[in-house]
Amino acid sequence: MQIIVAKRAGFCFGVKRAIDIAFDLVKNREGGVYSLGPIIHNPQVIKKLEAKGVNPIENAHSSIIKTLIIRTHGISPEVYNDIAKLDFKLVDATCPFVKKAQQQVQNLEKEGYQVLILGDKDHPEVQALLGFAGDNVVVVSSNETIPKLKGKVGIIVQTTQPIESLKKVVCQVIDKVRKIKIYNSICESTIVRLEETEKLAGMVDIMIVVGGKNSANTTQLAVLSKNICDKVKHVETSEELKNEWFKGAEKAGITGGASTPQWIIDEVVEKIKEISGRR
Amino acid sequence: MQIIVAKRAGFCFGVKRAIDIAFDLVKNREGGVYSLGPIIHNPQVIKKLEAKGVNPIENAHSSIIKTLIIRTHGISPEVYNDIAKLDFKLVDATCPFVKKAQQQVQNLEKEGYQVLILGDKDHPEVQALLGFAGDNVVVVSSNETIPKLKGKVGIIVQTTQPIESLKKVVCQVIDKVRKIKIYNSICESTIVRLEETEKLAGMVDIMIVVGGKNSANTTQLAVLSKNICDKVKHVETSEELKNEWFKGAEKAGITGGASTPQWIIDEVVEKIKEISGRR
Repeated sequence: MQIIVAKRAGFCFGVKRAIDIAFDLVKNREGGVYSLGPIIHNPQVIKKLEAKGVNPIENAHSSIIKTLIIRTHGISPEVYNDIAKLDFKLVDATCPFVKKAQQQVQNLEKEGYQVLILGDKDHPEVQALLGFAGDNVVVVSSNETIPKLKGKVGIIVQTTQPIESLKKVVCQVIDKVRKIKIYNSICESTIVRLEETEKLAGMVDIMIVVGGKNSANTTQLAVLSKNICDKVKHVETSEELKNEWFKGAEKAGITGGASTPQWIIDEVVEKIKEISGRR
Repeated sequence: MQIIVAKRAGFCFGVKRAIDIAFDLVKNREGGVYSLGPIIHNPQVIKKLEAKGVNPIENAHSSIIKTLIIRTHGISPEVYNDIAKLDFKLVDATCPFVKKAQQQVQNLEKEGYQVLILGDKDHPEVQALLGFAGDNVVVVSSNETIPKLKGKVGIIVQTTQPIESLKKVVCQVIDKVRKIKIYNSICESTIVRLEETEKLAGMVDIMIVVGGKNSANTTQLAVLSKNICDKVKHVETSEELKNEWFKGAEKAGITGGASTPQWIIDEVVEKIKEISGRR
């Protein structure tokens, strides 16, 4: 069986940077290193970090914290102002592309636009963006019908959304509003990863999507693949792979989310080789 | 045979205003009234105006001009500066919605956007808009592939374009550029007229589109109707109507462009009633 791994599967720039920051911190500090919520949405990576001494914490008002890392998804100005005055070192590992989107939301709000965020309401990145957007903000997910809008609308996008969703939402907004400003804040790595996954899913008999079940962007890769390939499996680790999935398959494709580490992808490849060899 | 006339067939606000201005002028002036090019794209209305003493002229540098009317489509700042210093009274009959679009193009240019005009390159409205757009401007018609674009793009639309064309172009721009500002300058009357025509074309056996063969917005109504109705005829006057077109038809729809006068539409209705009665 031929195994094809998508070139851009795995850590994006922002995730790699955040993980590097976290590992560097525990090298030089003696305990008390925490991240405000899990740094990224991958349980296996979080476990590795915990083993090294970086623990996720939900409440920043805790005396055990000596160093607090702001995760890739960023935080709202309100949360920042609340924790900045506390007695610990604050380390900002917000993805620079997310940071840029936050600034763009701020600009839109200052320029009098009603901000429309395309993304998942409950995702921490969107939660943080909301804090920059003023009172008239609207959050819309990709398949939602947009609500009534005000005179001029400024559109910003969760960095891991598909570009096709942006197009759909913009077409809806054009039907309702005459002045529109768009910041396409989808990161380049998302665009390329989705394109590669789409192409790969059309070439193979089975697609293995590797990454956190809680990772929105990994789940999106699985959804996209299911539209194209008949057999798609979303796994977090190689242990979940089952022999019978690969019966009759000549080509297997592997892709992974922005928060999926290379070592898990490597393990998945090895395991599939093993399964393939057995037959 | 049932005859259904689209509610918004005929003169839009801007055309009505310009024609009123022209007729008022010849009431109070003794000759020498000219328009820079035909005021609107309807040969029959132009003839009526000529009979009253409003003649189209292509070259403003002429000593016979005592009053010069700027037509609905507007003129570029360059042309304005050239003719404003000449020795005649200048009367501006530019459609207020076109005027607004010109201001919006100027804003986009000042804010550093590369201006993209969606429209027909040779249409006088677009020619005038071009004069406000600076050096980096791009004109794209509805079915054209857009060229390479710069960092941030500001989109403006010829007031008589279909909204679906705007959506198509915006989706193309989203694939190329991250910062986009859109002024949807399509006038409300265009949007409603296209919607009504689309609906009507789906209900009738034959569509009669009335208006200047040189009128872009009338031609567009004919193109749209042809996508929906099997039998579509574009006529300028009732004289062009032919008995055989209506053989077997139970319902006839009539629509007209923004530059089509009510009296021509009325004549077309009368003629069809006559044809219908004969059978």
